[in-house]
Amino acid sequence: MATDQLSATFAALADPTRRAILARLVTGERSVTELAEPFTMSMPAVSKHLRVLERAGLIARGRDAQWRPCRLEAAPLKEVAEWTERYRAVWEQRFDRLDAYLQELKATEKRHGRQRKK
Amino acid sequence: MATDQLSATFAALADPTRRAILARLVTGERSVTELAEPFTMSMPAVSKHLRVLERAGLIARGRDAQWRPCRLEAAPLKEVAEWTERYRAVWEQRFDRLDAYLQELKATEKRHGRQRKK
Repeated sequence: MATDQLSATFAALADPTRRAILARLVTGERSVTELAEPFTMSMPAVSKHLRVLERAGLIARGRDAQWRPCRLEAAPLKEVAEWTERYRAVWEQRFDRLDAYLQELKATEKRHGRQRKK
Repeated sequence: MATDQLSATFAALADPTRRAILARLVTGERSVTELAEPFTMSMPAVSKHLRVLERAGLIARGRDAQWRPCRLEAAPLKEVAEWTERYRAVWEQRFDRLDAYLQELKATEKRHGRQRKK
């Protein structure tokens, strides 16, 4: 089991249903019933996903016993963004290199085009 | 098991050893032996982590049978960054709200300070 916060966050995000739940919470609080609606999934299955998200600190739930609305807690996502940011230079370098290669290909094509015209 | 790319990436990142391996690859290719060095871990255990990273497309390995160097593949991390970016507004709003609250507290303190001086 994940012990550090970042591992717990990544583990919680490694599921498309849980990511879809988070996406629906961007616009505001929602009840469990509302969250369950778009999924062809039993309420206990949705509740299980919510517990994983809650344990990872990605959602919090209201105290109201009748209606315990879920709300998004974005702090762990900020941590993910900060962690990922360290690798930006690597992927930008890769894409720069790919771009340089494409420019080179275009230049070669142009030269060949010109040669054909001669 | 994770079926989509983003889930596979998040699952692979949900482990501090695997994240440490990626961090060591930022500066360039490394052999499995070099990667295993800082960890009090058996070679098979390290190899298992490398297989998870490779399956998720986070590393690629050289073809040389003798020395199969590992290199970082940053494209899945770019996908993580793009996914996370959608939530930036949420955490910035939260921190803005916290900041507004702190400013308010400071202002109240100042007012109280002034009252005490009277």
